[in-house]
Amino acid sequence: MDETTQAASPETLDSIHHLAIEVQDVAASVAWYQAHFKCAITYQDATWALLKFANTSMALVIPAQHPPHIGFVVDDATRFGNLTTHRDGTRSVYVNDPDGNALEMMARENTRVG
Amino acid sequence: MDETTQAASPETLDSIHHLAIEVQDVAASVAWYQAHFKCAITYQDATWALLKFANTSMALVIPAQHPPHIGFVVDDATRFGNLTTHRDGTRSVYVNDPDGNALEMMARENTRVG
Repeated sequence: MDETTQAASPETLDSIHHLAIEVQDVAASVAWYQAHFKCAITYQDATWALLKFANTSMALVIPAQHPPHIGFVVDDATRFGNLTTHRDGTRSVYVNDPDGNALEMMARENTRVG
Repeated sequence: MDETTQAASPETLDSIHHLAIEVQDVAASVAWYQAHFKCAITYQDATWALLKFANTSMALVIPAQHPPHIGFVVDDATRFGNLTTHRDGTRSVYVNDPDGNALEMMARENTRVG
Protein backbone atom coordinates (compact mmCIF):
# COMPACT_ATOMS: atom_id res chain seq x y z
CA MET A 1 0.00 0.00 0.00
CA ASP A 2 1.60 3.28 -1.04
CA GLU A 3 1.59 6.62 0.73
CA THR A 4 -1.26 7.97 -1.38
CA THR A 5 -3.52 5.11 -0.34
CA GLN A 6 -2.63 5.47 3.33
CA ALA A 7 -3.61 9.13 3.25
CA ALA A 8 -6.85 8.47 1.38
CA SER A 9 -9.23 11.43 1.57
CA PRO A 10 -13.02 10.87 1.64
CA GLU A 11 -13.10 11.43 -2.12
CA THR A 12 -10.79 8.52 -2.78
CA LEU A 13 -12.22 5.96 -0.34
CA ASP A 14 -13.78 2.84 -1.83
CA SER A 15 -17.58 2.64 -1.97
CA ILE A 16 -20.06 0.06 -0.76
CA HIS A 17 -22.25 -0.60 -3.78
CA HIS A 18 -24.84 -2.79 -2.05
CA LEU A 19 -25.41 -5.18 0.78
CA ALA A 20 -27.37 -8.37 0.20
CA ILE A 21 -29.47 -10.19 2.79
CA GLU A 22 -31.51 -13.37 2.54
CA VAL A 23 -35.31 -13.31 2.44
CA GLN A 24 -37.80 -16.11 1.87
CA ASP A 25 -40.42 -14.14 -0.07
CA VAL A 26 -39.07 -11.31 -2.20
CA ALA A 27 -42.42 -9.64 -2.83
CA ALA A 28 -43.42 -9.72 0.83
CA SER A 29 -40.05 -8.34 1.90
CA VAL A 30 -40.10 -5.56 -0.68
CA ALA A 31 -43.53 -4.57 0.64
CA TRP A 32 -42.23 -4.63 4.23
CA TYR A 33 -39.18 -2.49 3.43
CA GLN A 34 -41.26 -0.03 1.44
CA ALA A 35 -43.72 0.26 4.32
CA HIS A 36 -40.95 0.98 6.82
CA PHE A 37 -38.39 2.99 4.84
CA LYS A 38 -38.21 5.65 2.20
CA CYS A 39 -36.51 3.61 -0.52
CA ALA A 40 -37.05 2.99 -4.23
CA ILE A 41 -37.26 -0.29 -6.15
CA THR A 42 -34.45 -0.50 -8.70
CA TYR A 43 -35.20 -4.09 -9.73
CA GLN A 44 -37.51 -6.90 -8.65
CA ASP A 45 -38.28 -10.44 -9.76
CA ALA A 46 -39.23 -13.62 -7.88
CA THR A 47 -35.62 -14.41 -6.89
CA TRP A 48 -34.27 -11.03 -5.81
CA ALA A 49 -34.88 -7.32 -5.58
CA LEU A 50 -32.66 -4.25 -5.36
CA LEU A 51 -33.77 -1.37 -3.16
CA LYS A 52 -32.15 2.05 -3.57
CA PHE A 53 -31.44 4.11 -0.48
CA ALA A 54 -29.96 7.62 -0.46
CA ASN A 55 -26.34 6.51 -0.28
CA THR A 56 -26.20 2.81 -1.24
CA SER A 57 -28.46 -0.09 -2.22
CA MET A 58 -29.80 -3.18 -0.51
CA ALA A 59 -30.45 -6.51 -2.23
CA LEU A 60 -33.10 -8.93 -0.97
CA VAL A 61 -32.20 -12.38 -2.25
CA ILE A 62 -33.76 -15.82 -1.81
CA PRO A 63 -31.35 -18.36 -0.26
CA ALA A 64 -30.92 -20.38 -3.47
CA GLN A 65 -29.15 -17.40 -5.04
CA HIS A 66 -26.11 -15.56 -3.68
CA PRO A 67 -25.20 -15.78 0.01
CA PRO A 68 -25.59 -12.67 2.16
CA HIS A 69 -22.74 -10.41 1.12
CA ILE A 70 -21.39 -6.89 0.80
CA GLY A 71 -20.55 -5.48 -2.63
CA PHE A 72 -17.64 -3.05 -2.90
CA VAL A 73 -16.58 -0.95 -5.87
CA VAL A 74 -12.80 -1.10 -5.96
CA ASP A 75 -9.88 -0.20 -8.18
CA ASP A 76 -8.37 -3.14 -10.01
CA ALA A 77 -10.90 -5.77 -8.87
CA THR A 78 -8.92 -8.38 -10.79
CA ARG A 79 -6.35 -8.43 -7.96
CA PHE A 80 -8.96 -10.54 -6.13
CA GLY A 81 -9.38 -13.09 -8.93
CA ASN A 82 -11.01 -13.58 -12.30
CA LEU A 83 -14.11 -11.44 -12.78
CA THR A 84 -17.48 -12.82 -13.85
CA THR A 85 -19.73 -10.65 -16.04
CA HIS A 86 -23.31 -10.46 -14.77
CA ARG A 87 -26.57 -9.86 -16.64
CA ASP A 88 -26.57 -6.18 -15.65
CA GLY A 89 -23.13 -5.60 -17.14
CA THR A 90 -21.25 -5.43 -13.84
CA ARG A 91 -18.13 -7.54 -13.39
CA SER A 92 -17.08 -8.97 -10.06
CA VAL A 93 -15.48 -11.74 -8.05
CA TYR A 94 -16.55 -13.09 -4.65
CA VAL A 95 -14.02 -13.52 -1.85
CA ASN A 96 -14.28 -14.23 1.87
CA ASP A 97 -12.80 -12.09 4.62
CA PRO A 98 -10.81 -13.87 7.39
CA ASP A 99 -14.09 -14.71 9.21
CA GLY A 100 -15.85 -16.08 6.15
CA ASN A 101 -17.99 -13.02 5.48
CA ALA A 102 -18.75 -12.98 1.75
CA LEU A 103 -17.56 -9.90 -0.13
CA GLU A 104 -18.24 -9.07 -3.78
CA MET A 105 -15.39 -7.12 -5.34
CA MET A 106 -16.83 -5.15 -8.26
CA ALA A 107 -14.97 -3.44 -11.07
CA ARG A 108 -15.71 0.27 -11.31
CA GLU A 109 -17.09 0.23 -14.85
CA ASN A 110 -20.88 -0.15 -15.23
CA THR A 111 -21.47 0.40 -11.53
CA ARG A 112 -23.19 3.33 -9.92
CA VAL A 113 -23.37 3.71 -6.17
CA GLY A 114 -26.59 4.77 -4.43
CA MET B 1 -47.46 6.61 4.15
CA ASP B 2 -48.43 9.92 2.54
CA GLU B 3 -48.12 11.02 -1.07
CA THR B 4 -44.86 12.85 -0.43
CA THR B 5 -43.26 9.69 0.89
CA GLN B 6 -44.54 7.57 -1.97
CA ALA B 7 -42.94 9.96 -4.46
CA ALA B 8 -39.64 10.09 -2.57
CA SER B 9 -36.85 11.56 -4.68
CA PRO B 10 -33.23 10.43 -4.20
CA GLU B 11 -32.70 13.39 -1.87
CA THR B 12 -35.38 12.21 0.52
CA LEU B 13 -34.61 8.50 0.60
CA ASP B 14 -33.49 7.05 3.92
CA SER B 15 -29.77 6.37 4.39
CA ILE B 16 -27.82 3.31 5.45
CA HIS B 17 -25.58 4.56 8.24
CA HIS B 18 -23.51 1.40 8.67
CA LEU B 19 -23.53 -2.34 8.30
CA ALA B 20 -22.09 -4.51 11.03
CA ILE B 21 -20.51 -7.93 10.54
CA GLU B 22 -19.00 -10.34 13.04
CA VAL B 23 -15.25 -10.87 13.33
CA GLN B 24 -13.22 -12.86 15.84
CA ASP B 25 -10.21 -10.56 16.07
CA VAL B 26 -10.91 -6.88 15.57
CA ALA B 27 -7.29 -5.80 15.12
CA ALA B 28 -6.57 -8.54 12.59
CA SER B 29 -9.73 -7.74 10.64
CA VAL B 30 -9.05 -4.02 10.60
CA ALA B 31 -5.61 -4.79 9.19
CA TRP B 32 -7.13 -7.09 6.55
CA TYR B 33 -9.72 -4.52 5.45
CA GLN B 34 -7.13 -1.76 5.34
CA ALA B 35 -4.86 -3.94 3.24
CA HIS B 36 -7.63 -4.68 0.73
CA PHE B 37 -9.68 -1.48 0.63
CA LYS B 38 -9.26 2.26 0.68
CA CYS B 39 -11.08 2.96 3.94
CA ALA B 40 -10.41 4.97 7.08
CA ILE B 41 -10.62 3.93 10.74
CA THR B 42 -13.24 6.01 12.55
CA TYR B 43 -13.04 4.05 15.82
CA GLN B 44 -11.30 0.94 17.12
CA ASP B 45 -11.06 -0.94 20.40
CA ALA B 46 -10.78 -4.63 21.27
CA THR B 47 -14.52 -5.27 20.86
CA TRP B 48 -15.36 -3.42 17.67
CA ALA B 49 -14.15 -1.03 15.00
CA LEU B 50 -15.83 1.35 12.59
CA LEU B 51 -14.42 1.70 9.08
CA LYS B 52 -15.41 4.66 6.93
CA PHE B 53 -16.00 4.12 3.22
CA ALA B 54 -16.87 6.83 0.71
CA ASN B 55 -20.62 6.52 1.09
CA THR B 56 -21.30 4.58 4.31
CA SER B 57 -19.50 2.83 7.17
CA MET B 58 -18.80 -0.76 8.15
CA ALA B 59 -18.61 -2.03 11.73
CA LEU B 60 -16.47 -5.06 12.64
CA VAL B 61 -17.86 -6.47 15.88
CA ILE B 62 -16.91 -9.47 18.03
CA PRO B 63 -19.81 -11.92 18.49
CA ALA B 64 -20.34 -11.07 22.17
CA GLN B 65 -21.49 -7.59 21.14
CA HIS B 66 -24.28 -6.73 18.71
CA PRO B 67 -25.43 -9.28 16.12
CA PRO B 68 -24.68 -8.62 12.46
CA HIS B 69 -27.06 -5.84 11.47
CA ILE B 70 -27.77 -2.91 9.19
CA GLY B 71 -28.14 0.58 10.65
CA PHE B 72 -30.60 2.97 8.98
CA VAL B 73 -31.09 6.67 9.62
CA VAL B 74 -34.84 7.24 9.54
CA ASP B 75 -37.41 9.88 10.34
CA ASP B 76 -39.24 9.31 13.61
CA ALA B 77 -37.27 6.26 14.74
CA THR B 78 -39.53 6.04 17.79
CA ARG B 79 -42.25 4.48 15.61
CA PHE B 80 -40.14 1.31 15.90
CA GLY B 81 -39.96 1.36 19.72
CA ASN B 82 -38.21 3.07 22.59
CA LEU B 83 -34.78 4.40 21.67
CA THR B 84 -31.62 3.61 23.63
CA THR B 85 -28.91 6.27 23.85
CA HIS B 86 -25.44 4.94 23.05
CA ARG B 87 -22.02 6.12 24.21
CA ASP B 88 -21.47 8.05 20.97
CA GLY B 89 -24.67 10.04 21.42
CA THR B 90 -26.70 8.21 18.78
CA ARG B 91 -30.16 6.90 19.71
CA SER B 92 -31.64 3.78 18.19
CA VAL B 93 -33.79 0.71 18.54
CA TYR B 94 -33.20 -2.76 17.08
CA VAL B 95 -35.94 -4.56 15.17
CA ASN B 96 -36.06 -7.67 12.99
CA ASP B 97 -37.34 -7.78 9.45
CA PRO B 98 -39.77 -10.61 8.52
CA ASP B 99 -36.82 -13.00 7.99
CA GLY B 100 -35.10 -12.19 11.27
CA ASN B 101 -32.44 -9.91 9.79
CA ALA B 102 -31.43 -7.44 12.51
CA LEU B 103 -31.98 -3.76 11.67
CA GLU B 104 -30.94 -0.79 13.80
CA MET B 105 -33.32 2.15 13.41
CA MET B 106 -31.37 5.30 14.24
CA ALA B 107 -32.75 8.75 14.99
CA ARG B 108 -31.39 11.41 12.68
CA GLU B 109 -29.78 13.59 15.37
CA ASN B 110 -26.11 12.95 16.15
CA THR B 111 -25.69 10.71 13.12
CA ARG B 112 -23.63 11.38 10.04
CA VAL B 113 -23.64 9.04 7.07
CA GLY B 114 -20.42 8.07 5.30
